[in-house]
Amino acid sequence: TEKIGIVKSDGNFATSADWVLDPTELANKFNSKTKAIILNTPHNPLGKVFTQEELQLIADLCIKHDTLCISDEVYEWLVYKGNKHIKIATLPGMWERTITIGSAGKTYSVTGWKVGWSIGPQHLIKHLQVVQQNTLYTCPTPLQEALAQALWIDCKRMDEPDCYFYSLSRELEGKRDRMARLLREVGLKPIVPEGGYFMIVDVSALNVDLSDEEGSQPYDYKFVRWMIKLSAIPLSAFCGPETKAQFEKYIRFCFIKKDSTLDAAEVILKNWNKQKA
Amino acid sequence: TEKIGIVKSDGNFATSADWVLDPTELANKFNSKTKAIILNTPHNPLGKVFTQEELQLIADLCIKHDTLCISDEVYEWLVYKGNKHIKIATLPGMWERTITIGSAGKTYSVTGWKVGWSIGPQHLIKHLQVVQQNTLYTCPTPLQEALAQALWIDCKRMDEPDCYFYSLSRELEGKRDRMARLLREVGLKPIVPEGGYFMIVDVSALNVDLSDEEGSQPYDYKFVRWMIKLSAIPLSAFCGPETKAQFEKYIRFCFIKKDSTLDAAEVILKNWNKQKA
Repeated sequence: TEKIGIVKSDGNFATSADWVLDPTELANKFNSKTKAIILNTPHNPLGKVFTQEELQLIADLCIKHDTLCISDEVYEWLVYKGNKHIKIATLPGMWERTITIGSAGKTYSVTGWKVGWSIGPQHLIKHLQVVQQNTLYTCPTPLQEALAQALWIDCKRMDEPDCYFYSLSRELEGKRDRMARLLREVGLKPIVPEGGYFMIVDVSALNVDLSDEEGSQPYDYKFVRWMIKLSAIPLSAFCGPETKAQFEKYIRFCFIKKDSTLDAAEVILKNWNKQKA
Repeated sequence: TEKIGIVKSDGNFATSADWVLDPTELANKFNSKTKAIILNTPHNPLGKVFTQEELQLIADLCIKHDTLCISDEVYEWLVYKGNKHIKIATLPGMWERTITIGSAGKTYSVTGWKVGWSIGPQHLIKHLQVVQQNTLYTCPTPLQEALAQALWIDCKRMDEPDCYFYSLSRELEGKRDRMARLLREVGLKPIVPEGGYFMIVDVSALNVDLSDEEGSQPYDYKFVRWMIKLSAIPLSAFCGPETKAQFEKYIRFCFIKKDSTLDAAEVILKNWNKQKA
């Protein structure tokens, strides 16, 4: 009975694969005025890695409605066992309508570097170059050079265990599983991510009464403030007004942390659980 | 007679100090709807360093009309003998209405670094922080740390000859004078800058006939393309539609160059002069 609210009705733990697009709803969002769709896989904050079939569904709609696809794939290398990242630009008919976005910060765990890239056909990239020339103007060039060196090294050792593209996700998989276990132990319901380094957690099972908390903010904002010792982000921060209400029982944890930090989180969570009991 | 068109009617060479604001015209631009003025001193592309009196004129108008002042002072350390950079924020009544902008790229000759700063009172900076949080989000942090170290070192050695704040402009002053001399020797009319590392040059004395050149671009664009061996920027690129026509006889050179590059420029200019003769 301890597992109630944690496992799904089929007895399995919840994962990001349970979250799927409704094909009819998605198709209904497209019309002749639809200029572009923004895709994000692996997905932040959910951790969902879109399957070939799901991407084909999106691709079919893009082609049918002559729509651009801006594909944010900054977590492309952070996929866990049993999942495979697929670039939508590799699907037939998609290269010429897709801009794929990558990130040095996410690929090499240097989120302060402010270096990334866009990949696409010349007829789309030329417009990005105009924007770049008139806004950012340049990347931080010393970091750009360091990134080029790093990519060069890792492309040459794709099949070696040290290749950072693969070694990071292997290292993170253990941290992901540990954090999920910890959260379940205190009665929370983590949605185990297939990719990325975030984990969203359903906090509604706790039924913490936050009505005394000041302000008219959504439940998830209040919960995060109440639980201030563990750093998390309220999920509704990611939502527009239409979908905010659906997500306010979730918060997002980050598990790309030193083991000592996860140890500290374990202590906090276990103490907290004792206080509840 | 060789100096005709190069010296001014008073017998002196032209400098950026000859370029002054018309107080009446400036005053007429202000009204109750004027939210902010953008000031740039030392000025790019002109090289003008605004005097105390000129800044006071601007400050008086800002205070009278309750106008913000966004002061781009990225060349603050690049002032040449006889000139002094004054921050408009230091004038009475201006601190509380001024945002002063500085640049690591310009201060330390690392223009690829993409690190700068804004200085102002808390009630203005807080709004910049909101914009920063929602656009750039962070600076490139390794470069930010390096900048902090550099500023720390140079602030401690302000009175020493090695202090980079002063040593760079001393080094550049010789290059400025050399480039002005070279340009005069081939019949061009440089406007000697009081600050910065650009020099604008009146090319109309040459009377190069560019009517054969294709396209409907302004004269300065055509001239720069014609003179492609020396890299320069047409000045009208800096102008809005109202003022473009006044500046299309000028081009901008950059003189923060290795001596070997200036040597090469000298060869190009002298050969060119021979061909004309």
